[in-house]
Amino acid sequence: MSDTPAPVPPALAPGSTVGILGGGQLGRMLSQAASRLGFDVVILDPEENSPAGRVSRGQIVAAYDDPTALNVFGRVCDVVTFEFENVPARSVELLAEAGARVAPGPRALAVAQDRILEKTFLNEAGAPTVEFAMVDDLASLETALQVIPLPALLKTRREGYDGKGQVWIKTLIQAADAWAAIGERPAVLEARALFVRELSIICARGWDGKTAVYPLGWNTHKGGVLKTTVAPAEVEPKTERRARAIARAVLEQLDYVGVLGIELFDLGDGRLLVNEIAPRVHNTGHWTQDGCVCDQFEQHIRAITGWPLGPTAAHAHVEMTNLLGDEIDQWQKLAGKSDMRLHLYGKGEARPGRKMAHVNRVRPL
Amino acid sequence: MSDTPAPVPPALAPGSTVGILGGGQLGRMLSQAASRLGFDVVILDPEENSPAGRVSRGQIVAAYDDPTALNVFGRVCDVVTFEFENVPARSVELLAEAGARVAPGPRALAVAQDRILEKTFLNEAGAPTVEFAMVDDLASLETALQVIPLPALLKTRREGYDGKGQVWIKTLIQAADAWAAIGERPAVLEARALFVRELSIICARGWDGKTAVYPLGWNTHKGGVLKTTVAPAEVEPKTERRARAIARAVLEQLDYVGVLGIELFDLGDGRLLVNEIAPRVHNTGHWTQDGCVCDQFEQHIRAITGWPLGPTAAHAHVEMTNLLGDEIDQWQKLAGKSDMRLHLYGKGEARPGRKMAHVNRVRPL
Repeated sequence: MSDTPAPVPPALAPGSTVGILGGGQLGRMLSQAASRLGFDVVILDPEENSPAGRVSRGQIVAAYDDPTALNVFGRVCDVVTFEFENVPARSVELLAEAGARVAPGPRALAVAQDRILEKTFLNEAGAPTVEFAMVDDLASLETALQVIPLPALLKTRREGYDGKGQVWIKTLIQAADAWAAIGERPAVLEARALFVRELSIICARGWDGKTAVYPLGWNTHKGGVLKTTVAPAEVEPKTERRARAIARAVLEQLDYVGVLGIELFDLGDGRLLVNEIAPRVHNTGHWTQDGCVCDQFEQHIRAITGWPLGPTAAHAHVEMTNLLGDEIDQWQKLAGKSDMRLHLYGKGEARPGRKMAHVNRVRPL
Repeated sequence: MSDTPAPVPPALAPGSTVGILGGGQLGRMLSQAASRLGFDVVILDPEENSPAGRVSRGQIVAAYDDPTALNVFGRVCDVVTFEFENVPARSVELLAEAGARVAPGPRALAVAQDRILEKTFLNEAGAPTVEFAMVDDLASLETALQVIPLPALLKTRREGYDGKGQVWIKTLIQAADAWAAIGERPAVLEARALFVRELSIICARGWDGKTAVYPLGWNTHKGGVLKTTVAPAEVEPKTERRARAIARAVLEQLDYVGVLGIELFDLGDGRLLVNEIAPRVHNTGHWTQDGCVCDQFEQHIRAITGWPLGPTAAHAHVEMTNLLGDEIDQWQKLAGKSDMRLHLYGKGEARPGRKMAHVNRVRPL
């Protein structure tokens, strides 16, 4: 590209303020990592006393698109980041106008917020995805079903996570029901990936363009929600190389700053397809807290504050398990296991399916 | 003893509130450990926005002996602990009256606050100290100087840390000056220990009487202030056994709950003398953050909340270095070293000698 590269901003000194939009468990663990490096942290979240707010210097209690709140937030923070990808574009503009460095930037958020943009970007970046087709109405869904082999997965273009906002179409006569089931919203129809397992790779890039990539994790899901990550995953060297090349291409072509998670389908023949990218710290990277010297949370804080990236090698083998809803009631049993590291999120109500905590079972490599 | 043992209180569930008296770096790292286990944390400290307050759910800004503040604090907290040993005995009573579990208990604090009580206790517990004599006035100092060989160290009985409140007496004619130098306060005269190095041992005990002991650290000081700890220290097995026996005896005979640090003089011939005990997490235990699966901060939180104690084996070799005053200006260089783990305390002003941060240099065992 002929654009002049943006100047590399100087590293933020300890005592600077890091802002995090979103006060859930990811914001909480980011806040803890930032504190360890001597930063002050302020959270913006509509829920009072959010999990992240309770471990931070302060919290602004406001909606994510509240212009006044964003102006104050952008002025008190030296850098602002996000714990989720569905940040309104206008909010990012307001933060930048208020004087905060913002990372990751608007392009990464725009790409990750829209499944059509995301898949188009990935394929152009040389990171293949499943076949897909754009769906805007029932007619275009029927056209798409001529191209994408059945069974196919209909997903809303925007929002939806942990298996929400998506429905499988197994026969053509299910098209109208599926269209109704996703709320008749703009969508993408995806071919089924014939994968043998799901992998993910957590990677980071700084303002200076340097990158850092963690070993692969092997993920299992239950009811559409991540259940376990085992890392470092046992993979062929060529699979590892391929995943790292995808990670570097995505980071560079998004001109990305921060930690990014990439979910991959391992087709079992050396090929990898990208399922989706998350422009943030990622549940499948929680194993790094007890498997690496510098975990994904500290890595993200280092990247966005302009600090040198930390090392990514694993020093232990980790099996991460999410505790959902009342599984948190096992805390006492788990606390007694000497190879088990507990990470609780400080959430009050253990609603069914709610992510309450995770545990890392650690053993020597 | 014929006393009925106190009943073991049930483990506090996640979501319970841990109170910490003192908002410095030890309180900050205790708070972070408590948050990781899902506890809410409230700090009591007279300094607004203390290092610990900034990473906690809340802070009560009040003096450590403010009865109203202590009553509120004791009522909102399920358990209260301390980051320093000079807690007024009356404060502990007020907290207990307000309904909080308090750990460590009043006996450990009383012993650690008074160098005569401490040394008497230690010798009775089978943990030898240097020879010492009580000094209440110039006359008793002169009597003591007949018994304790020169050079001898005159220390105030209470308070004083990091080399403050103490003066060496090399010849008898210095007695009056030394007595004036420590402010003519009740004191102890200590014989010089002919030690080859200073060691320390960090240990913990739960409400159920179970104990956990970390490997020894080897400490060096500069200007009376801890500079480095190297751990696990290379020691003879019999030295390790002796230190562990001392740790267990001290914990048990104080009926202690929480983490306790013990400073030792290694006489080089297998003998160990106890220099002092600290009824709290200890600067010489910071290496455990990057050398052990369960560090001293989490261990203390586990002990006082009635959780099972965590493992204490080292999985790495660590050299901990304190950064004092403007040594913190090296942050950027240190952040770029991949074997260096940074722990910054979020303190604003880098006054000379002030503990601003520590770094743990980690290498495989």
